[in-house]
Amino acid sequence: MNHTTRYLRLKDEMSAQHFDAMVAVSPENVFYMAQTYIETQKSLRDRLAIALLPLEQDPVMIACVIEQNTVEAETWIQDRRYYVEFQQSPIQFLAQAIRERGLSRGRVGIELDYLSALWFMELNEALPDVEFVPCVQTFEWLRSRKDKAELDLLTRAAQSTLKAFETALEETAPGDTERQLGNRTAQHMLDLGCDKVDFLMMGTGPRSLMAHALPDDSPLALGEVGRIDFGGLFGNYNSDVARTFTIGKPAPKQLDIFQRMTEVYLAAISSCQIGVPVNTPYLIAQQLSKSLKLPFSRVHEGHGLGIGGHEHPILSPNNTALFEEDMVLCVEHAVHVDGRRYHVEDLIHITRNGPMILSDPDFRPRLLELV
Amino acid sequence: MNHTTRYLRLKDEMSAQHFDAMVAVSPENVFYMAQTYIETQKSLRDRLAIALLPLEQDPVMIACVIEQNTVEAETWIQDRRYYVEFQQSPIQFLAQAIRERGLSRGRVGIELDYLSALWFMELNEALPDVEFVPCVQTFEWLRSRKDKAELDLLTRAAQSTLKAFETALEETAPGDTERQLGNRTAQHMLDLGCDKVDFLMMGTGPRSLMAHALPDDSPLALGEVGRIDFGGLFGNYNSDVARTFTIGKPAPKQLDIFQRMTEVYLAAISSCQIGVPVNTPYLIAQQLSKSLKLPFSRVHEGHGLGIGGHEHPILSPNNTALFEEDMVLCVEHAVHVDGRRYHVEDLIHITRNGPMILSDPDFRPRLLELV
Repeated sequence: MNHTTRYLRLKDEMSAQHFDAMVAVSPENVFYMAQTYIETQKSLRDRLAIALLPLEQDPVMIACVIEQNTVEAETWIQDRRYYVEFQQSPIQFLAQAIRERGLSRGRVGIELDYLSALWFMELNEALPDVEFVPCVQTFEWLRSRKDKAELDLLTRAAQSTLKAFETALEETAPGDTERQLGNRTAQHMLDLGCDKVDFLMMGTGPRSLMAHALPDDSPLALGEVGRIDFGGLFGNYNSDVARTFTIGKPAPKQLDIFQRMTEVYLAAISSCQIGVPVNTPYLIAQQLSKSLKLPFSRVHEGHGLGIGGHEHPILSPNNTALFEEDMVLCVEHAVHVDGRRYHVEDLIHITRNGPMILSDPDFRPRLLELV
Repeated sequence: MNHTTRYLRLKDEMSAQHFDAMVAVSPENVFYMAQTYIETQKSLRDRLAIALLPLEQDPVMIACVIEQNTVEAETWIQDRRYYVEFQQSPIQFLAQAIRERGLSRGRVGIELDYLSALWFMELNEALPDVEFVPCVQTFEWLRSRKDKAELDLLTRAAQSTLKAFETALEETAPGDTERQLGNRTAQHMLDLGCDKVDFLMMGTGPRSLMAHALPDDSPLALGEVGRIDFGGLFGNYNSDVARTFTIGKPAPKQLDIFQRMTEVYLAAISSCQIGVPVNTPYLIAQQLSKSLKLPFSRVHEGHGLGIGGHEHPILSPNNTALFEEDMVLCVEHAVHVDGRRYHVEDLIHITRNGPMILSDPDFRPRLLELV
């Protein structure tokens, strides 16, 4: 889907919601609409990049002058303006652009879940007669249905990420450290085309319970369980997968827990069908856990994935949005038993033929072994 | 400096500014005050962690239930509360805590540069009689003067980061790709104790001009110039350094540009003295560039570094704050000549004996060579 098609889809939504313009301020939506990604904005939050996307008039791109070369090389937007960081305010540039487009009394959708309260106060002061309306759901919904290029990229990202860990497992022996296993995984991710290892959470033994423990110098102790939840950026799209592994061959009890958990997991995945409410996998996992005598303490059972790490739809119990064709999501399941966490997560594509597992085409959930 | 000392320093500031409480919401300030770091919050921005820090009453820590194990293991705050993501609002938890502490009509400093406009609207609605005041400068100022442990960590981070690149350069030959050089650098960073390679921007030839280009499959072409600007997280503290290198031995003209640039750079560093305005390095670099016939197009000449990637002080031309003892900052300089960028950046410690270069104890700026 090229940028013209995307903008047309956005305009359809704008018309339906009576917006005169929409404003993207998060790196994700700026990239989706304007095709330029300000990498440093994630850590340097003040380095705002903004796309003003009017319904009728020409769009405007606003970025920090430090990023000028990048933006010039990437965006299709013709009207590009650059502010000097720490001296000029990106918000004043946005206000000026809205004025120039004749929208000083318009109704403008803007990402108020991203824009800071302080920036928004400044914007309101500069444009007191504009009606600013939160609009994140519109962007989220547009981004949730992936095109062919996005599907290919997400598939490659997920498969490369898993492959990196499996290769690292083969190179690692009991007694090595978590950090060694983690670093080998990161290295293989980069070698397989990952631009940045975004998060790599690993814990073995009791540390497996920490949702977001970084690997440390703990030795990989024979007989223990470990879990890894990790992902990276491939062409500005995310991977996010999780696996459970035993150090040494699994004990019968470990295998039994994993197998029952897998049954729950596969039932959750199978329920991801077009037209079905997105809380279905959660409710099914909850129900089946009970009959399989497994604890269930999930907050959600997965989430959409794309440019963002958590996108629409979130598979939480109270979310009654419906699955749509070409949504791509991470389904994940975890159980805590005997002070250890077992965790699996894969990338799923919603198709007319049901859910397809993109991360692992020969999908058979396996308890991985580090031997 | 332990958490009690930090809280006491914060309370001094609160008294001076007539705050009844301060609220930290950014991962940086939550970590600084509450000693727990929610790693995933950087990419999952809705996963708010909040520290309510009253002047008189006991503090409260609020986090997502998914992070409970991490928070329990890390924070010293006794009163810990957890919300269920996508079902409960962290803002309602904060409002309730403020009410319980008897501050429903108080004056409360809060990071309005971090908190989103939407969250802030919800907070104002829940607590219409609280006077919320932006307070980021207070946190920034407290964090700008580093203690011994922070200095040690930042020094190790900077030196390991540079070491990683120098080792990767030795392993790389002309004709290899930018990506290979970048991946080797990342790998060595991890092996040297980096928890996460946060950004690694590299470009050779014309790509050196892109402020934030990721390394790509461009071959490292003999005779070209390259620059790398990169850093990672070490125990939640950042490294951020930059180097320029030639592929093959440098041409006399390349060496000449680098040497003149270095003269400017060292003059800028030398001016970082206690009590001097922080725009001095910028102004000196600007002036000296002119007399050395070098172009000057800097937006700033550096920035503080710590838990955040850009901290107080920003060395921008209009910033007249003063250098203080034990500030730690990145001084950086870059010139664009013949369509190539030359760039250097090091870590500087402001001491009573003048600026100390932490990143490279035997400091002599060198044009690195990939041969």
